[in-house]
This record gives sequence, C-alpha cells and structure tokens, in this order.
Amino acid sequence: MKLDNENAFGMIGLGTMGSNLLQNIADNGYHCAGYDNSTDKVESLNNLKRDTIQGFSDLKAFARSLKSPRIVMMLVPAGNIVDDVIDELLQVLDLGDIIIDGGNSHFTDTERRNLSLKEKGYHFIGMGVSGGEEGARKGPSMMPGGDKKAYEIVVPILKKIAAHVNGDATVAYMGERSAGHFVKMVHNGIEYALMQLISETYEILKNGLKYSDVEIHDVFKKWNEGRLQSYLLDITRDIFAYKQEGKTDALVNDISDQAKAKGTGKWTSQAAMDLNCPIPTIDISVSMRDLSHYKELRVKASKMYPNNNLHYDAKGEDYVDVLEQAFYFSMVSAYAQGMHLLFKANEEFKYDLNLDLIAKIWRGGCIIRSAFLEDIFTAYQKEAKLEHLFLDDSIHNNLTKSIAGIRTIVSDAVLHGIAIPAFSTSLSYFDNFRCASMPTNLIQAQRDYFGAHTYELIGKQGVFHTIWEIENKVE
Amino acid sequence: MKLDNENAFGMIGLGTMGSNLLQNIADNGYHCAGYDNSTDKVESLNNLKRDTIQGFSDLKAFARSLKSPRIVMMLVPAGNIVDDVIDELLQVLDLGDIIIDGGNSHFTDTERRNLSLKEKGYHFIGMGVSGGEEGARKGPSMMPGGDKKAYEIVVPILKKIAAHVNGDATVAYMGERSAGHFVKMVHNGIEYALMQLISETYEILKNGLKYSDVEIHDVFKKWNEGRLQSYLLDITRDIFAYKQEGKTDALVNDISDQAKAKGTGKWTSQAAMDLNCPIPTIDISVSMRDLSHYKELRVKASKMYPNNNLHYDAKGEDYVDVLEQAFYFSMVSAYAQGMHLLFKANEEFKYDLNLDLIAKIWRGGCIIRSAFLEDIFTAYQKEAKLEHLFLDDSIHNNLTKSIAGIRTIVSDAVLHGIAIPAFSTSLSYFDNFRCASMPTNLIQAQRDYFGAHTYELIGKQGVFHTIWEIENKVE
Repeated sequence: MKLDNENAFGMIGLGTMGSNLLQNIADNGYHCAGYDNSTDKVESLNNLKRDTIQGFSDLKAFARSLKSPRIVMMLVPAGNIVDDVIDELLQVLDLGDIIIDGGNSHFTDTERRNLSLKEKGYHFIGMGVSGGEEGARKGPSMMPGGDKKAYEIVVPILKKIAAHVNGDATVAYMGERSAGHFVKMVHNGIEYALMQLISETYEILKNGLKYSDVEIHDVFKKWNEGRLQSYLLDITRDIFAYKQEGKTDALVNDISDQAKAKGTGKWTSQAAMDLNCPIPTIDISVSMRDLSHYKELRVKASKMYPNNNLHYDAKGEDYVDVLEQAFYFSMVSAYAQGMHLLFKANEEFKYDLNLDLIAKIWRGGCIIRSAFLEDIFTAYQKEAKLEHLFLDDSIHNNLTKSIAGIRTIVSDAVLHGIAIPAFSTSLSYFDNFRCASMPTNLIQAQRDYFGAHTYELIGKQGVFHTIWEIENKVE
Repeated sequence: MKLDNENAFGMIGLGTMGSNLLQNIADNGYHCAGYDNSTDKVESLNNLKRDTIQGFSDLKAFARSLKSPRIVMMLVPAGNIVDDVIDELLQVLDLGDIIIDGGNSHFTDTERRNLSLKEKGYHFIGMGVSGGEEGARKGPSMMPGGDKKAYEIVVPILKKIAAHVNGDATVAYMGERSAGHFVKMVHNGIEYALMQLISETYEILKNGLKYSDVEIHDVFKKWNEGRLQSYLLDITRDIFAYKQEGKTDALVNDISDQAKAKGTGKWTSQAAMDLNCPIPTIDISVSMRDLSHYKELRVKASKMYPNNNLHYDAKGEDYVDVLEQAFYFSMVSAYAQGMHLLFKANEEFKYDLNLDLIAKIWRGGCIIRSAFLEDIFTAYQKEAKLEHLFLDDSIHNNLTKSIAGIRTIVSDAVLHGIAIPAFSTSLSYFDNFRCASMPTNLIQAQRDYFGAHTYELIGKQGVFHTIWEIENKVE
C-alpha cells in the first residue's frame, strides 16, 4: 500500500486518451493516479500493473493520493459532464489546487469556468490536447491557457510528456482565460480543411484520373516525401496500402462515406462568423461532412443527374505535379485562414497569443503537424504581428508558383463534374483576398436601395443615402 | 380629442419601417397608434396629420388608446431592447393582450419569449417582416409564428396591409413558437446568397468582359424580363442606371466596397451548422461580406499578387446567355439550400411548417420575391413533403439545361482570376449532392486511424476499428 500525497498528477477519465496520457506521465518518472466512475476502466488501468500508476474508484482516495497543490486533469466529454465533474472535484480538493480541462471544451465554457473557479480560489487551466491516441501515449501537442501561475507549476511535467521538435517540447502557455481551447478549436478547424482537401485529391485521382489504390498510395507517398510532408498525408498513404486479409481492394473502399464529426470544426466556423473573420475553406469542409450524411438524397440525385463525363485523360507524372501545386496552394490557404482567425480572436478577446509559439508547438505531436508549419513558424518569427500568412515574402513566393496549378486543377474538375469544393473555395478566397476592390460596393447600393441602410463613398467622409428609383435614370 | 379604446393596432418603434407600416394600416381603414421613446419620432408621426394615426410619448396613454384585446407590434432593434420593451409593455397591458415582435429577432430569443409570455398569460407572435421601407409602406411579406389563436385575431389586419399576388395576401401562419423568425432568418440567408451572386455577375461583366455601366444595366434589364425576374435584379438594373448630376459614371462605382450586415445571414449559417444542414452558398456569401471589411489587407495583397489576366474576350450576346444559365443554376441552388434548411429545421424543431405556404407568401412583398418562387410554390404544391428542390421534376429539367453554362462560367473565371466564390460553391455543392458516393469514406478512415473513432462498412451492420499502421501494408 502506497502512502498518501505521493502522486504528482491525477487524471479524471480513463478512456484511451486518459489512460495513454497517464502511462506517458509514468514513463517520464512521475507517480500518478487515475479516477473513473466506471470500475471497468479503473480495473483496466490497474491491470497494466505499473508501480507508479494507481487507479481509483473512490474520488476522495484519489484526491488524498495527490501531492499538494494537487494537479488534476480531466479528460471527459465536453459539455455538462465537465461541470458535473468540477462540482464533484470541489468536494475533495483544497483551495489552491489546480484543475486542468484537457478535453475539447467550447472556449466560451472555458471562459465561464475560468472565472468561476478563480472566484472560488482554485487554479484552472483550459488545455487543448492534440495527437490522438498515439500522441497521448508517445507525446502530444498541448495548448494550455488560463491561470499562468498554475501553468508554471504544471509545465515541467507537460514538457516531459509532450512531443519534441529539435529538442523543444510541443507545449507552451497560449494566453489568458480560454486561449488554450480557442487555439485547439482552430487547430481542429484547420484539420477539417486539410482532411477535406485530401479527400478531394482522392476524388480527382480515383474518379477523374481512374488511379488504382496502389497508384493513389504512390502519389501520397511521394508527396509526403516533399514539401507537403505531414502527419495527415502520412496516415493517408498508409490507408491506401491497407487491405484486409484475402481482399484485393484497399479497406478504405468499403467504408461508408457518411463522415462523423464531434463539432469542433463547426465551432470554428461559427466563432469565425461571430468575429467577422472569413475562413471559407474550413466552412465548406464542415458543410461537406454534413452533406455526406444525406445519403438517401444523394443516391436519388445521382440517378436524376448522372455524370458520364467524370473521367479525363490527364494521367502521368506531370499532372500529379500540377495537382501537388493545387494541394500546396489550398493547404497554405487552410493554415492561413486558421492563423488569421487566431490573429483576429487575439485582437477581440485580448488573449495575448503569440502566433509564432502556436506554430512552434504545432510542429510536432498534433494532427496537423507538417513541414509547412516550419515555414509558418519562420514567418511569425520574422514578424510577430504578421496579420496574414499570404503577406509573408517567402510564402508569397511559393504561393505564386502554385497559382497556375490550382487554376488548372479547379478548372478541369469543374468541367468534368468532379466535386472539389475546398480546392475551389481556397482559390476564390485568394482571388477575392487580392482584390483591392471587391464587387461588394453593389451590395451596399442594394442595401441602401431596399432598406435605406446608407453607404460610404470612396475617399469621402460620412454616410450617404440615395432615393435610387426616382431620378437620373439613363433609360 | 379621441376616445380611449378606439385604435385597432399599436406600434412600438417609429423608425421608417414602423411609421410606414402604420401608414399602410391607416390606408386600409384602421385607426392606429404609435409609440416611441424619441419625442422627435412621435412628432414626425403626428406631423403626418392623419386622422386615424395617433403618436404617443406616453406608454400608458398609448395602451389606453387601444381596443381590447390590444394588438401591439414592436419594430425595434433585435436583442436586449426587445426584452426591455416587453418588460415595459407588461406594465400597461392586460392579460390576454397580443404582443407581436416584428423585428429581426434571433429565433432562440423568440422561442424563449414565446414560452415566458405564454406562462404569464399574454399572447405572443414572433413575425418576420420583409420588404424594406417600400414594402412596409405598400405591402410587405409577413411571416408570423407562435400563438395561433392570437394570429386568428390579427390576421384580418395583416391580410389587408400585405402585398398581394394573384389576389392572395403575402401573409400566412408559419408555425409553432419561433417558426416565424426562423423562416424570416432563412429568407435573409437566401437574400445574402442572391446579392452575392449578383455582385459576382457584376464582377465578371465589369472586370472579365469589360462591360460599361450601360452594358451592365442592359444585361440586368434583359434578365429581369425573363425567368430571372426578381426584385433584386430589378433594383440592380436601376442602380446601374443611376448617375449623380454632372457625373458620367454610375454612382455605384463610387461606393465603398466594405459591405455591412445586420447578422441574419450569419445566424442562418450558424443555425444550419447546428442542424448539420449544408448551405454553402449562403455561408460563402456571409464570408465574402466579412472579407470585404479587410480593405487594408486586400490592398496590400493586390500589390503582392497582381492579376494581369483578368480580361477575357467573350463579349457578345451568346456569352451573356451562358452567364444567364450560370446565374439561373446558382440562384436555384441558393433557394434550394434555404428551403432544405427549412425542411430540416421543421423536422428538428417540430414547427409544423408548410413549405408551399412559405413559397407562396414569398412571391410578393419581400426582398427575395422572384419569378422562380412561382416554380418553388408549384413544386411544393405537387409534393408537400419534397425534401429538396433539386429532386422536383420540373426544376430538374431546367437545372439540367443550365449545367453546361455554370461549368463554362466558373472555369473561365477560375482561369482568369475572377473571384466567383458563390458561383463555384453552388456548382461544387451540386456536384457533391449528385454523388451517390462522396470521398468522405477517407475521412472516416483517417478519423479511425488517428482517433480510433471507428467507421461503418457499406452494407454491413456495426461499427469497426482497425489498427491501420501495423499489418498488411503493400509497400
């Protein structure tokens, strides 16, 4: 039997993520404790038979086992459950203890909990954790925000369990209050966009160019060895190589196309709209997961609107290189939109974010880690207050070289009825972004016409209203 | 001096909309009263010197002047002000009186107010009103929802002041609780999409084809005489004909391109995401208004990424006809996405909506009224439970004929760097919609790979999980 007050870290919620993270902590030399209200999960943890990990079914005993100030991390489903767990925890913790919410909580919930726990005398950290199961076990990327003093107490442990890139741990203090969960939310929004872009690439390769699984695998393999190197391409390459025993087709072909989502992508789009920050590539990626659910409608529509023109003759190395340009272009756009949202949120919410630090810790451990994050990191190191990645010289250079590619790919797909919403949205976002004048002056005229909403004039102070329908017509 | 209890209708909020609606009511033979906390506005109303309209600065006197049960409509800015006005009103109203919120309230606020006022013993109607200033004066389209009994009492007045199409008033009971404001919100979402499509058409005509204001005017004039006939094209035609005295250019050219918004488009997109209903053409229209605000960024980007390829040689009648097809296609998509959202909201919120009735009252008075709404009305009359307009035979027929046009227009614009986000999104929405299989099976495989989120198999019951990285690689 162990002594009380021995464990350096406590985990509430012993699902795969929680259990893996505890093992990671133990691997790094810490004694730690886990609690779950499911006795099965506690048993599974104890069955690991690790000297320095204790599983508890009793919350009081769990709390008693922790060193003071206690560090307790929750990895439980987002929503009311988090509030319930906090309420229970407050029964067994002491003032000054540290509570970390490591789940995917909505940042507005974290904002509220941060305030309420501060008032009550507890330290609260809202922390995004990315890396999936494997990341939790071997080194995730972590985005803590909120109580800075508490962060200083916790960070030695976090640094040990994080992934490392060039010797640096993929964890850093993100900023005030809900900053950690906001940053993690945007991470996930970018993830949605990248996954959508990969799935559209697959669509072009499979239905446009009639590539086999092996050929698709080879494309992703090749790309993953160049500037597109990323965790998501890495696993995609593997997926196209994965066959079940006795099957000739890759398993992915048998998987249902109704894509699930836990809502963080949606939250990103909704929050961006509240901040008036355009992130259309992320928006359309959320929409397309939604559209995937309407299977019955789509099957009906496929019969009414058959497409006999899908296939186009552009096989060969060269076209795949053009496609690589298109992917590069759209990938840059996805990251740039996400980073722009962080820039804007920082202005609005006064988080005190450092975009270079965010890029830095995303380079390893997390789902969107990629070679390009090194370029993003470099861009913000050059100019910490860079408002948009498109304006960085080096990115500008590479992006310019890939414009021809995205135009060819979108145009070909459009003419053949291949659906490439994220590619085409990335391009039209860019084409609007580099317009000194958008055609939205007409929208202002229309609004003034029907609603007397007034308009502004170029180079003139004030607001104006016109009675459009009565005078000076040229007809 | 008038007697008390004489006025049939009371209006709180005497802005242009409120004042115009009162005049409309008076025109139809009713005695009515207006209240505002701005004495200037009350004075303006009384200065109209109409026998049957009384303006009040005193809320009690205003209330006293109304027949029982009182009918009081609010036209005040959405948000907390509505709650404040209701609180004040309850001081002077009697149980059983009817309160109508005619502003653009968020449907969740209406949901809450409906419940709270019902509990207190008042009748509440959340009513969308569309038509702008002119509509309010001459006949708006009205979308009341909530208390059915109260609706029956109010409807004779509403029918008189509404616009009329083929003898039918453009007002009908929408459905339970917040149905009226939900329907109006979606109306506005469609409005955003249509305005964005018109602005992109303008962009193609002006910067792609180098059309003059007069030529652009002629295009919209011609379109407005055909199947695209609509209020928004009607006013757009006028806008391109409007010059200020002594100027050779149309006024619209001098208007700032930073487009304002009151948020109803954003609400539509956010609500659709909560309902998992894809409405990407509306989403991108919201994003583009947002992007228009980033003038400084866009000017910088325009210098770094100049476009010397904008102009393309496709002048002439034929190309404008191709463009008309593209517009028709995207316009159908915008309405179809909005109606699909109503279908989905009806399932989720149990509003008891009738989509045919909604199309019917949108045919006149409101901002999105158009010849095509007659086709929508017909489609729902044929099949009340039609889930998506793309599946209607007649619309299918017309849409099919315009597919070639949208492909040409999007492809040309894409190759020349003309930004056409709503056109291209409408097309990629369609191309996904008519896919029996989307490439989102890959997304499910990726989610299972990194997060053990499991997947489903085509034609097999159950959920499955694979350890993707360890076996059966073909490499």
